[in-house]
Amino acid sequence: MKRTSLEDASCPIARSLDTIGDWWSLLIVRDAIHGKKRFGEFQKSLGMAKNILATRLRKLVADGILELQPASDGSAYQEYVPTEKGRDLFVILMALRQWGERNLYAPGELDTLYVDAERGKEIPALEVRAKDGRRLGPGDVLLKSLPSRPSRTQRARS
Amino acid sequence: MKRTSLEDASCPIARSLDTIGDWWSLLIVRDAIHGKKRFGEFQKSLGMAKNILATRLRKLVADGILELQPASDGSAYQEYVPTEKGRDLFVILMALRQWGERNLYAPGELDTLYVDAERGKEIPALEVRAKDGRRLGPGDVLLKSLPSRPSRTQRARS
Repeated sequence: MKRTSLEDASCPIARSLDTIGDWWSLLIVRDAIHGKKRFGEFQKSLGMAKNILATRLRKLVADGILELQPASDGSAYQEYVPTEKGRDLFVILMALRQWGERNLYAPGELDTLYVDAERGKEIPALEVRAKDGRRLGPGDVLLKSLPSRPSRTQRARS
Repeated sequence: MKRTSLEDASCPIARSLDTIGDWWSLLIVRDAIHGKKRFGEFQKSLGMAKNILATRLRKLVADGILELQPASDGSAYQEYVPTEKGRDLFVILMALRQWGERNLYAPGELDTLYVDAERGKEIPALEVRAKDGRRLGPGDVLLKSLPSRPSRTQRARS
């Protein structure tokens, strides 16, 4: 399944979607952040075809979102562990989850809830806020052009 | 392009991705939130094939994310405008953008920036925080099961 690549798009939303906009990839990252580590664990959780899972895992490793580590129990297995860049997707997963909770569930339908592990309380909704704390909606932000610089074409591939 | 549907998944992240996990759909919503309204405007901005754009727009309307309105200039055109549910995707777009800015750009490469329209200042990074303000990372939240209720199978399709 070939798609136009947005890898070099100048918009960070487009470039992010090129890396993690695949549905399965984000669900793999969700599971990895929840502590799943092995091929078989992802396969059981997601019910994906093995070849698709293998391709997605390889891309997530190539993109620096997961990394391979020797198994924690000393066995011959390898484990997939989120990198710092992968763990940084937590805020996106939380934003997706909260939007789904608000917009795609009937009252009483939701059967799980994220809570603050220390206090057991619900997690407040993420909100876009200005430096001075004002809540910002889509109409309260502007896209500002920055002067282009020579390093523009020398993008790091970390 | 057929995919397994996650529409009835019990996880809100999975269900959200089923609705808006398509790459192009989120980029259309990005443009709609930035004020683009007409088929031709989306086509020019995204460089998508017309048939793919038409399919995506139809799905976004069916899912209640965009709605069709008569053209604001009184012409025969129809315009696509984000609904409340569509505008609520703003926080997801901002989370995607900020992750991309942090993880996919070389220093000096970024050529646009979102600023607070009123003060012109940068928008602070979204952060997951507890009710008492503590910053929460992936290891600081727990997924709690809620008792299942009779309405579980009667999901609204709003």
